Amino acid sequence: MQKRPLILITNDDGLDAQGINVLTKCMLNLGQVVVVAPNGARSGAACSITPLVPVTLKLEREEENLLVYSCSGTPVDCVKLAWEKVVPRQPDLLVSGINHGDNASISLHYSGTIGAVIEGCMKSIPSIGFSLRTHKQECDFQPFLKVVEDVSSWVLKNGLPQDVCLNVNFPEVPALKGVSVCRMARGIWQSEWKETEVPGAYQLTGNYTNLEPDVEGTDYWALDHDMAAITPLTLDMTYYPSLDILKSLQK
Amino acid sequence: MQKRPLILITNDDGLDAQGINVLTKCMLNLGQVVVVAPNGARSGAACSITPLVPVTLKLEREEENLLVYSCSGTPVDCVKLAWEKVVPRQPDLLVSGINHGDNASISLHYSGTIGAVIEGCMKSIPSIGFSLRTHKQECDFQPFLKVVEDVSSWVLKNGLPQDVCLNVNFPEVPALKGVSVCRMARGIWQSEWKETEVPGAYQLTGNYTNLEPDVEGTDYWALDHDMAAITPLTLDMTYYPSLDILKSLQK
Repeated sequence: MQKRPLILITNDDGLDAQGINVLTKCMLNLGQVVVVAPNGARSGAACSITPLVPVTLKLEREEENLLVYSCSGTPVDCVKLAWEKVVPRQPDLLVSGINHGDNASISLHYSGTIGAVIEGCMKSIPSIGFSLRTHKQECDFQPFLKVVEDVSSWVLKNGLPQDVCLNVNFPEVPALKGVSVCRMARGIWQSEWKETEVPGAYQLTGNYTNLEPDVEGTDYWALDHDMAAITPLTLDMTYYPSLDILKSLQK
Repeated sequence: MQKRPLILITNDDGLDAQGINVLTKCMLNLGQVVVVAPNGARSGAACSITPLVPVTLKLEREEENLLVYSCSGTPVDCVKLAWEKVVPRQPDLLVSGINHGDNASISLHYSGTIGAVIEGCMKSIPSIGFSLRTHKQECDFQPFLKVVEDVSSWVLKNGLPQDVCLNVNFPEVPALKGVSVCRMARGIWQSEWKETEVPGAYQLTGNYTNLEPDVEGTDYWALDHDMAAITPLTLDMTYYPSLDILKSLQK
């Protein structure tokens, strides 16, 4: 009998979030599952790590084809710990999410969901982040589970190129109008600080403006048109077209 | 009389680190300087933000051509606060560092130094991160200041393309053998957890392996050959070659 694929799951909303529980159920259709997720919310954790204090790992639950651990660290710490201390072999897939809030356009840079995906990718695990454009804690993930399973199955079967991972975002709609493969849209966050009652203390908030709202083929355009957006990301942030221009600085 | 350029400075080692103080002195040769930096170490902060609690900003010092603020948040928070609440106009340059420890290859994904640079870039500020390959708290930055000033002057004069920023790394040598414009090297971090005396608690550590040690034109190769490495980075993490292959997922 062929071994079931080994699937590692994490997120940045913490182990109790609805999104990761929905995702875990979904992945149990596809393989043997290990969950290592933060023991609380780590929104905006990006690729941050915990270098200064120890990180704890705790087995929370053991069921058929399922191990669930909580971790005191960031989403990236979860992946690092899972990879080195938990999984019995190289995972066949890492999925992160389903995040409550989209991680399209430049927002992915702040995202702990995507931080975990980037970390998985660094460890040569085919890795996918799933996020839903919503502000609700309780949401209906049902309309997106078919795409979650389809994309995960596709990656299990076909793999991903070295150093490439996927960022999948869903609009909050009762039924998707389609699935679009797209690039990151350009955008900007503004009006990011709200004054508090304490002078000199500010609360992070902000408005996102899509700088190319009419450009088909971008992730925001897809979401704005009720479609799922699949964006391949690379670990290599080098901007190759500038290498030549900068040569005047070379000595 | 022409206005002096406005230069925003931050880092992830905190306001008291030697690197940011050296960098500040250096930038005072080039313009009017505003420093907004964390009030303590934020190593490994990446692009993380502080969404859940207020962030405080405090004026620490005011001198000729120099304002210095401390901030309770992450390096990215520092840039966001500086941009919206501190600087009188769009800065002409953002510099971050000089980091104690290199941020070459994939390590840049974890770096708060580079997180701040990415944030500056999102705000359309020409932005540069400077990092020194060292583990010492006290180091000799003198051999690198000419390159710091040259690269900063070049960017002040020529700007950078939209959504592109620079990651500059120095080897710890008494004299640089050159300056190289390069791409990110491929690498992997392994053996990342040291057991502590507490069962289930692990301390982050790790060994970096350069997966292409002999490839000239990569940042690690330059550092290994006693040269400064200048790498242009893009905000757009889309891996364009995969867009076509993934089309089979499109609906």
